[in-house]
Amino acid sequence: MKKRSVVLLSGGLDSTTSLYVSLRDGYETAALTLDYGQLHQREIGFAKMHTAQLGIAHKIVNFELPWKGSSLLDSSIPIPANRKPVRNASQIPSTYVPARNSIFLTLAASYAETLQANAVFIGANALDYSGYPDCRPDFLRSMENTLNLGTKRGVEGFHLSLEAPLLSLSKAEIIKLGYSLNVPFDITWSCYRGSDRPCGDCDSCVLRAKGFLEANIADPALSSISNHKNS
Amino acid sequence: MKKRSVVLLSGGLDSTTSLYVSLRDGYETAALTLDYGQLHQREIGFAKMHTAQLGIAHKIVNFELPWKGSSLLDSSIPIPANRKPVRNASQIPSTYVPARNSIFLTLAASYAETLQANAVFIGANALDYSGYPDCRPDFLRSMENTLNLGTKRGVEGFHLSLEAPLLSLSKAEIIKLGYSLNVPFDITWSCYRGSDRPCGDCDSCVLRAKGFLEANIADPALSSISNHKNS
Repeated sequence: MKKRSVVLLSGGLDSTTSLYVSLRDGYETAALTLDYGQLHQREIGFAKMHTAQLGIAHKIVNFELPWKGSSLLDSSIPIPANRKPVRNASQIPSTYVPARNSIFLTLAASYAETLQANAVFIGANALDYSGYPDCRPDFLRSMENTLNLGTKRGVEGFHLSLEAPLLSLSKAEIIKLGYSLNVPFDITWSCYRGSDRPCGDCDSCVLRAKGFLEANIADPALSSISNHKNS
Repeated sequence: MKKRSVVLLSGGLDSTTSLYVSLRDGYETAALTLDYGQLHQREIGFAKMHTAQLGIAHKIVNFELPWKGSSLLDSSIPIPANRKPVRNASQIPSTYVPARNSIFLTLAASYAETLQANAVFIGANALDYSGYPDCRPDFLRSMENTLNLGTKRGVEGFHLSLEAPLLSLSKAEIIKLGYSLNVPFDITWSCYRGSDRPCGDCDSCVLRAKGFLEANIADPALSSISNHKNS
């Protein structure tokens, strides 16, 4: 039987690249997208475009966190703007969503169990990132162990592997990797704001722009949006 | 500041008892109920009755697992009937929901973080239970560690404690404990089937009946339902 994976796919640059890594590595790949009340709902449409293009299974789970507690969920909390990117950031900004990746990974493990999948892929990165605790290696290792202890397949001796292929790459390295795998970056969405165009000043836009600059590649999403606007 | 907790409350006997333990232990207590597509949705109404009666905060998160994979979610899979209860069961029946308690605990940790809560309570039991891996002590310990690694408050040095006060009690001991705390057992729902009356033959009904019998207490839910029927 071909090995199988579930990829957490937001429709952003990192998760889409990790989707292509899963396919490159020979996994029969299914995607999982979480519609969790994020203000930048726009990304979900981008996620759907990838899986439709690739013809792979895709589940979307809807839930809302009624307690919010994040500027990604609550429009009354400002999203930080024009922050200088700090490598290995340790300050955690208001865009942190309480326990978000923990929730995502447990849902992915649930889906993975029904598919008898070998791996869950997450596009987490702990270098050019916003300091989120749930993107760090020690958290991911601990979660992998927990998921194996807390699932039927796990306690029956089947190991579910948590794969974070971008974890220690710089944003420029992620972009070069994606480029080499023909990731259609023009249909990825990174901006934390839900507008028609990327804002250019949220952490996610700033990190993306820095990555493309350092990789010496033009961001096709920007020209694609501008083409679209001009068409 | 008074210590705070989030209690996972299904509306069943165990989770309701753990709610009362949290209150006994002096926590300012908030409840969290998950509406996850369970066929025995009925339990949610019971959960609401407790928090309304106690006047405590209560959040309900709705989501559906589109992959199902459990007889609690998929009516085409039969719920096992008339199984003899086995203490310390290791066989996992079809009522197991893939990664359910993992999902529940991460959602509870998310809510707990916004409340600056000290503890999450879960009514898990690993003695008179159905063998679910996500009710076992090693899983719960590992999840506690993972949640602290993956949350802002956790990495900032604040410890979230995972409390499972019923973990090693027999069902009869849980019932005696609840009885001593005046838990209104007449408004708890254990049955895995979603009918008007408890079926009496699913694992949950069988364990409940055995517990009341061993505790030498009459189950008030049965007489309450029967009174209701006769009225």
